[in-house]
Amino acid sequence: MRAYHLTGNGIDGIERREGPEPTPGPGEVAVRVEATSLNFRDLLIAGRMGGDRIPLSDGAGRVIARGDGVDGVEVGDRVAGCFFPHWVDGRIDGAIHDAALGGTIDGMLAETVVLPAHGVVAIPAGWTSLHAATLPCAGLTAWNALVEGQQVRAGQTVVLLGTGGVSVFGLQFAKMLGARAIITSSSDEKLEQMVDLGADVTVNYRTTPDWGDAILEATGGQGADLILEVGGADTLAKSLACVRHGGQIALIGMVSGDTEVSPRPLFMRSATMRGIYVGNRRMFTEMVAAIDANGLTPLIDAVFDFDAAVDAYRHLRSQAHVGKVAIAV
Amino acid sequence: MRAYHLTGNGIDGIERREGPEPTPGPGEVAVRVEATSLNFRDLLIAGRMGGDRIPLSDGAGRVIARGDGVDGVEVGDRVAGCFFPHWVDGRIDGAIHDAALGGTIDGMLAETVVLPAHGVVAIPAGWTSLHAATLPCAGLTAWNALVEGQQVRAGQTVVLLGTGGVSVFGLQFAKMLGARAIITSSSDEKLEQMVDLGADVTVNYRTTPDWGDAILEATGGQGADLILEVGGADTLAKSLACVRHGGQIALIGMVSGDTEVSPRPLFMRSATMRGIYVGNRRMFTEMVAAIDANGLTPLIDAVFDFDAAVDAYRHLRSQAHVGKVAIAV
Amino acid sequence: MRAYHLTGNGIDGIERREGPEPTPGPGEVAVRVEATSLNFRDLLIAGRMGGDRIPLSDGAGRVIARGDGVDGVEVGDRVAGCFFPHWVDGRIDGAIHDAALGGTIDGMLAETVVLPAHGVVAIPAGWTSLHAATLPCAGLTAWNALVEGQQVRAGQTVVLLGTGGVSVFGLQFAKMLGARAIITSSSDEKLEQMVDLGADVTVNYRTTPDWGDAILEATGGQGADLILEVGGADTLAKSLACVRHGGQIALIGMVSGDTEVSPRPLFMRSATMRGIYVGNRRMFTEMVAAIDANGLTPLIDAVFDFDAAVDAYRHLRSQAHVGKVAIAV
Amino acid sequence: MRAYHLTGNGIDGIERREGPEPTPGPGEVAVRVEATSLNFRDLLIAGRMGGDRIPLSDGAGRVIARGDGVDGVEVGDRVAGCFFPHWVDGRIDGAIHDAALGGTIDGMLAETVVLPAHGVVAIPAGWTSLHAATLPCAGLTAWNALVEGQQVRAGQTVVLLGTGGVSVFGLQFAKMLGARAIITSSSDEKLEQMVDLGADVTVNYRTTPDWGDAILEATGGQGADLILEVGGADTLAKSLACVRHGGQIALIGMVSGDTEVSPRPLFMRSATMRGIYVGNRRMFTEMVAAIDANGLTPLIDAVFDFDAAVDAYRHLRSQAHVGKVAIAV
Repeated sequence: MRAYHLTGNGIDGIERREGPEPTPGPGEVAVRVEATSLNFRDLLIAGRMGGDRIPLSDGAGRVIARGDGVDGVEVGDRVAGCFFPHWVDGRIDGAIHDAALGGTIDGMLAETVVLPAHGVVAIPAGWTSLHAATLPCAGLTAWNALVEGQQVRAGQTVVLLGTGGVSVFGLQFAKMLGARAIITSSSDEKLEQMVDLGADVTVNYRTTPDWGDAILEATGGQGADLILEVGGADTLAKSLACVRHGGQIALIGMVSGDTEVSPRPLFMRSATMRGIYVGNRRMFTEMVAAIDANGLTPLIDAVFDFDAAVDAYRHLRSQAHVGKVAIAV
Repeated sequence: MRAYHLTGNGIDGIERREGPEPTPGPGEVAVRVEATSLNFRDLLIAGRMGGDRIPLSDGAGRVIARGDGVDGVEVGDRVAGCFFPHWVDGRIDGAIHDAALGGTIDGMLAETVVLPAHGVVAIPAGWTSLHAATLPCAGLTAWNALVEGQQVRAGQTVVLLGTGGVSVFGLQFAKMLGARAIITSSSDEKLEQMVDLGADVTVNYRTTPDWGDAILEATGGQGADLILEVGGADTLAKSLACVRHGGQIALIGMVSGDTEVSPRPLFMRSATMRGIYVGNRRMFTEMVAAIDANGLTPLIDAVFDFDAAVDAYRHLRSQAHVGKVAIAV
Repeated sequence: MRAYHLTGNGIDGIERREGPEPTPGPGEVAVRVEATSLNFRDLLIAGRMGGDRIPLSDGAGRVIARGDGVDGVEVGDRVAGCFFPHWVDGRIDGAIHDAALGGTIDGMLAETVVLPAHGVVAIPAGWTSLHAATLPCAGLTAWNALVEGQQVRAGQTVVLLGTGGVSVFGLQFAKMLGARAIITSSSDEKLEQMVDLGADVTVNYRTTPDWGDAILEATGGQGADLILEVGGADTLAKSLACVRHGGQIALIGMVSGDTEVSPRPLFMRSATMRGIYVGNRRMFTEMVAAIDANGLTPLIDAVFDFDAAVDAYRHLRSQAHVGKVAIAV
Repeated sequence: MRAYHLTGNGIDGIERREGPEPTPGPGEVAVRVEATSLNFRDLLIAGRMGGDRIPLSDGAGRVIARGDGVDGVEVGDRVAGCFFPHWVDGRIDGAIHDAALGGTIDGMLAETVVLPAHGVVAIPAGWTSLHAATLPCAGLTAWNALVEGQQVRAGQTVVLLGTGGVSVFGLQFAKMLGARAIITSSSDEKLEQMVDLGADVTVNYRTTPDWGDAILEATGGQGADLILEVGGADTLAKSLACVRHGGQIALIGMVSGDTEVSPRPLFMRSATMRGIYVGNRRMFTEMVAAIDANGLTPLIDAVFDFDAAVDAYRHLRSQAHVGKVAIAV
């Protein structure tokens, strides 16, 4: 069984190694991985984590073996892994938080992985493993941001920042839920792609640096009901300035780095900022049901071979992508 | 100013009369009615209520005058009236409940009506008054059933019974929210129309009298997440038998008459039955925002002239309609 | 290991038998039962179920052994069993529903039981097993009714019908949450006990047969925000007549038998009827945290020896009890 | 009619003046003010606002006259004013936000005030106007923080920072709802008072500067479910470090000044920060119902005569108070 390992030397230190085929213990399943995908988080982890960890949270494939006492999953089922394999439902806690695929525990960039049976989810009907491998982190993060907490309502306005994996899923789910979607990018070409996916309003933040004002204008001065804040240092203060009274900011991992802001606008606008750290298995199965009912197609920017996995990291790092960067195993 | 009046003699006793043009008091607006629509409730009321009441809850038109102290509504605005003119937001109470247009207080089947300013709502952008006149009762009832309480999620299954006004709006809103929609009818022709509106599954309850079983089958044996129960005597027991564990029945005015049922299935299935009595102004404005964002067109079966208003009642009574029966004023 | 078994001959057919000590499999724990309690449901089951089933859903004791792969539960822990051993969190489904202790699967009236590790809960600090054995069905049912769904707010009015196990817990939890509590009974003596537990208003339904009117009066004509409907045939129609606009009826197993009612009042009052079937493990742990923080003592009417278990059934059947009937093992 | 006016010169510039008795217009009531209370906000406003504004958001008294078209309020009723006189229910918006008593519009430090009828609330039964004058800002802010959004559950842990008006109400309401309350102060004497009001854990932040660690310790390392963050610059970073996974920070006006923080802990802990800006009339009436049902007494530190109103400001500024500073008119 071949797998990639982080060695603490960043992307260039990622090594492919041969190892024994893992076997599932009680309550576990073995999955032949057919596809994986990358998230911005994987760049951060590659840069700081060593110790032989197998990277990547996202992957999908076929169940090839089951341990004792496994119900509800059959050999041959096509499944995706859960980012937090032990977060089945309800509220996250510290123990759940401390076991995340491709971070504190081994991830999906391997030919075979062993996961708890309660840590896999049947993929959408008719989807390939390649499609499904885009869901566990980016898809579920966007779904959680839109649907949990104070669920977005049809007719409300959702803002997506940039055209990375979370934002593109956010756009697609926002439209699925009947919301208006505003999306930003530095590229008019990417924005045209977003219009094809249903964007109601597009803002080029290079030519319109005061994109927060553009959002206020597009909402009749009221501001957005929900902003999926994936940017961080570059964007958070602006997002706080264009959220609606009583609106929400979904705070998602900060691509452009950590930053300090005054939370005063939250107080002045009776608004909410909610930290989104992917989501649980129950949310995942609900997202799959929604995809089944509505027929969405994930936007995959590029697919790399298993042998070229490191190139996939480099492509993600270049930020030239739109949507997801994937690896076929 | 001409208006129709109930005289306690059913549909045939409805009389058109000439009267003085009403003028708005403090906090009120006068509306030139341009269109109205009928609901099943209006048949019931015509059959039992006299005392000169002007009938119909649903209507839309232009504001032609404002009383003192009116903010946020301008002369010339196109508005629809609210079924409960004093239910602005929050929970209903007895006093709100006891002032319903076309029931306990005068309604919309008149050339001019006076309403509290907080009892009118701006209609969807680009809509005619005829379109907007379908919303106040049927549209808002369906919206409330789907969106308030335990809001329907994308991917969940919603059941609509028959093709009356509430059910057709229920279908359109369910699709807008990303849900799966199952709809019943006694006519294959009507069901084909419903497929065009987005129905995922159709059931002819004449050829499939055990339509509850068909719903169980269409949901893999789990049952429906939400059933908009508009039928009553003819359908309620069957609806109770095909609601999902933890699912909901929205109990809406009973077209086929009152009935007694054992609520035991609610207990056995941890399900909820929620009485829906139209909705409040805040919900109405949210529904309008959703229509603005998603571009729905109401299904109007027939439009009658103001002079032929009684014919509109007769058409509704015949149950040959699909969607709404309207009157142009 | 001694255990009682149902034989299909009602209470008188319950037999005590000697059997082998059970051992826990993977993911399971063995519990030395120290106390159990009875619920009305156990009378129904004894009357209709045979096949050697060990009865009773409710019990508590000490963990004496663990199978492979058990985390978070230690030998020596004092735990209670969960009514639905596989309902960890989220929504119930058919499979969960079909495995209930003392019903479709063996229950707690035994010296040793084996349960899934995710089907036990640590009991409140400082409580005996006898106290804790009152919680799994009656306690959690009342907690679910008050706290889940549309959670009761401080200052709202809760109605409890009779002084059985669910109603007494309902009273105690309602006061813990800052609600007003109205309780009914046929005995002034029992009602005095209820005042000692915090009841704000008491109604003797023998001397005040129109107790629904008394509830309307005690709520200024508005009706109750929440009614814990445990009665069924004898009470449901009256409960429907005294629920507030927008209020709730928690529909709990029907002590006085099944009944048919018109659900029309739900529609007229925009009210909700929610079926409550005990609850899940997450709710149970939250209930325990609430008890830990507030220091409640369960009301135990009588404690029988293990040898006299059948007498406990007879005592419950007599309906002379107030609160819970328990068995020390 | 005598009233105080801000002149733009801080506390020392506050002037008492004689003016004409105001009369209510349509939809308005005149209230003879019997008591007012101060909030930290009033110090900020006195320091920066001139233009003859009558200060103070909080006051209560008797209705002495009604304008046309007023229902539901009678002459002689004892009422409190609403901080936002036009926020009746639902979500706040910009227009509501921009009309706040004692800020953008005239406030309550006057013998007679005129308010919209929908901007007053009947005070708790048996309360004096002096008691009721403590509720509109501090009481309702604490209530909103605990009860709206993700409502605190019995058994959860609530943290109160300091012993100002909001924190003391927060403590009292937390106990009313069955929660555990941890409160901080720099004075052991004040902390003893808090124990008398029900505090479960107290932390002297002078002798325990790492009070966040003390909160982690008191919650078994999990952190607090809800923190009422009234401090701002001095406390926010510490609060972010001791909130539970999935917990909430209620962000309330910042007594110790604005500050910039990294919101990263919200993301890491899937936590929520919600801006609380007092609350609406519906919440106020629910708070009053809760007080009626539970018999709370507000903690008033000192009462000043109307003639000594400026001394009340000085006393608040000294921060020697515990609970509320009030003025009898």
